[in-house]
Amino acid sequence: MTRLRVAFLGPLASFSHQAAADSFSKLTADLLPHASFADAFAALQNKEVDYAVIPCENSTNGSVVQTLDLLADREDAYTDVKVCGEHYLTVHHCLLARKGLYPGGWAEYDGSITKLYTHPQAWGQCENFLSKHFKGVERQDVSSTSKAAEIVSKDMVERGAAIASRFAAEHHGTDVLREDIEDRADNTTRFLILRNVLSERSAQLEFEQPSPPTVGGQTAQLTHKTLITFTIDHSSPGALANALLIFKAHGLNLTTINTRPSLKKPWQYIFFVECGKTASEGNGEAVRNALHDLRQVTETCRDFGTWKDQLRASNV
Amino acid sequence: MTRLRVAFLGPLASFSHQAAADSFSKLTADLLPHASFADAFAALQNKEVDYAVIPCENSTNGSVVQTLDLLADREDAYTDVKVCGEHYLTVHHCLLARKGLYPGGWAEYDGSITKLYTHPQAWGQCENFLSKHFKGVERQDVSSTSKAAEIVSKDMVERGAAIASRFAAEHHGTDVLREDIEDRADNTTRFLILRNVLSERSAQLEFEQPSPPTVGGQTAQLTHKTLITFTIDHSSPGALANALLIFKAHGLNLTTINTRPSLKKPWQYIFFVECGKTASEGNGEAVRNALHDLRQVTETCRDFGTWKDQLRASNV
Repeated sequence: MTRLRVAFLGPLASFSHQAAADSFSKLTADLLPHASFADAFAALQNKEVDYAVIPCENSTNGSVVQTLDLLADREDAYTDVKVCGEHYLTVHHCLLARKGLYPGGWAEYDGSITKLYTHPQAWGQCENFLSKHFKGVERQDVSSTSKAAEIVSKDMVERGAAIASRFAAEHHGTDVLREDIEDRADNTTRFLILRNVLSERSAQLEFEQPSPPTVGGQTAQLTHKTLITFTIDHSSPGALANALLIFKAHGLNLTTINTRPSLKKPWQYIFFVECGKTASEGNGEAVRNALHDLRQVTETCRDFGTWKDQLRASNV
Repeated sequence: MTRLRVAFLGPLASFSHQAAADSFSKLTADLLPHASFADAFAALQNKEVDYAVIPCENSTNGSVVQTLDLLADREDAYTDVKVCGEHYLTVHHCLLARKGLYPGGWAEYDGSITKLYTHPQAWGQCENFLSKHFKGVERQDVSSTSKAAEIVSKDMVERGAAIASRFAAEHHGTDVLREDIEDRADNTTRFLILRNVLSERSAQLEFEQPSPPTVGGQTAQLTHKTLITFTIDHSSPGALANALLIFKAHGLNLTTINTRPSLKKPWQYIFFVECGKTASEGNGEAVRNALHDLRQVTETCRDFGTWKDQLRASNV
């Protein structure tokens, strides 16, 4: 079989790269960096890749708006894209330095680092550690945590350190001075695994998630989630409540709701609803019936696919 | 009567300043710039100001996450803050230059501007104009459109131009080379007007919005909107649908739904629901009854106040 092609948001050694590597660890796949979310979506629609691994939500920062805007697909540019899986990646940050710069490690660290590099979002995620150990030290924003690791791996002049993942440290060959420097141990990013429904290669293969965890020797029962997007007639009172009622009527529990501007008229929205059945019998018929009813009360309505719930699995 | 004090997100001549000036134009008020949303919320809670005017949503970019996070009030820091009004400000950008730099105005503009200044978000909002007339010209991000206007008003060396509002041009005394250079004429920001419910000054005064528009000599009938935030037990199937059903049961139409992470446990949310009655009789009793019922099915539930719907008024 030819190798699968999987798009992720670059650069190499990004958290998206790590999520793609985790998700496809049991498959023979080429993981391909893409410069933007839109590039990854376009590559998937054009069948240049079979899958794309895209962050959609972070447990601390909330939804990733760029991803929602691509799923909104206001120009019908990504009609063949569907969700076929998800992956939860807990975000652990490390303090990295050039190999050999501090041979004694953190235990013997002498306070000589003069500059820190990371992605702007990571500063806030490590504030407790930074204010305790690096108060007043210059901070340089860079475009990714992986880039930060790359910079310190090559820097022979300054005493710089990077905040990035262990995955990035291994990729760029830096030392890890200190692990788990993030404020919140539970900060987790959820990635959607997208496929092109017309791609024969991804259709032939039933996408395999990493094995579900086992409880007492038994494989934990998995439930499924479904993503549906829709727009409603906002001038019709109760239209939104009526649409949401349909999920309940078919026994589908709402797990998330997001909205984005429709961009057709101000203050009209595209709704993103994820739903699932709590029982394990699968959602197929309930989803089909719900979609049928939704099409009666919505202006537009799109089924973005059904996949195994990995959160419930990991929480068992 | 002592003058009212109104907080807005600075600097002077920002869009928030303009929204505050519009909203309080008929009242004697001191408009006071604040460095951050959190500063404005704190000043309001501490009664250093009577009102705060805070952007909550843009028709193109969607919800303002920082504002939702302050309204989420996870630490109970702003318990006395409620919404008492709203204001819609259509975002019009202008091309500004130092007074007298181009005495012939845009008609005689010779292509000699070498640098552009504005807030990062404004580039994207004027892309059509910029790619037509300023392709390849250096772009300098600055912290606000007002700051951009200030820079070009003082710059005696470079031929710089700013993208900012007419309000900022008047404040900083620049020329307006070209008006309405934005791509979307309908790009509008909605501001919430917040008050401290314990403040006697704002309690004495019934807050006056600018007069509602008139239709055929008649004042347009206004409806009201109410903001309610709540959290639910996510382990209980149907909990969200049950909560949303309550609004419908009391005749309250859902106009927006937003979610933010609860930060208590990953993948649990704070829901922000705005609702209103389509009839004009006011929402008082329906909201009271809905809140009573909501408290039975939610974990936490907060009434953020009821105010006159200015969108319906302006759309009549």
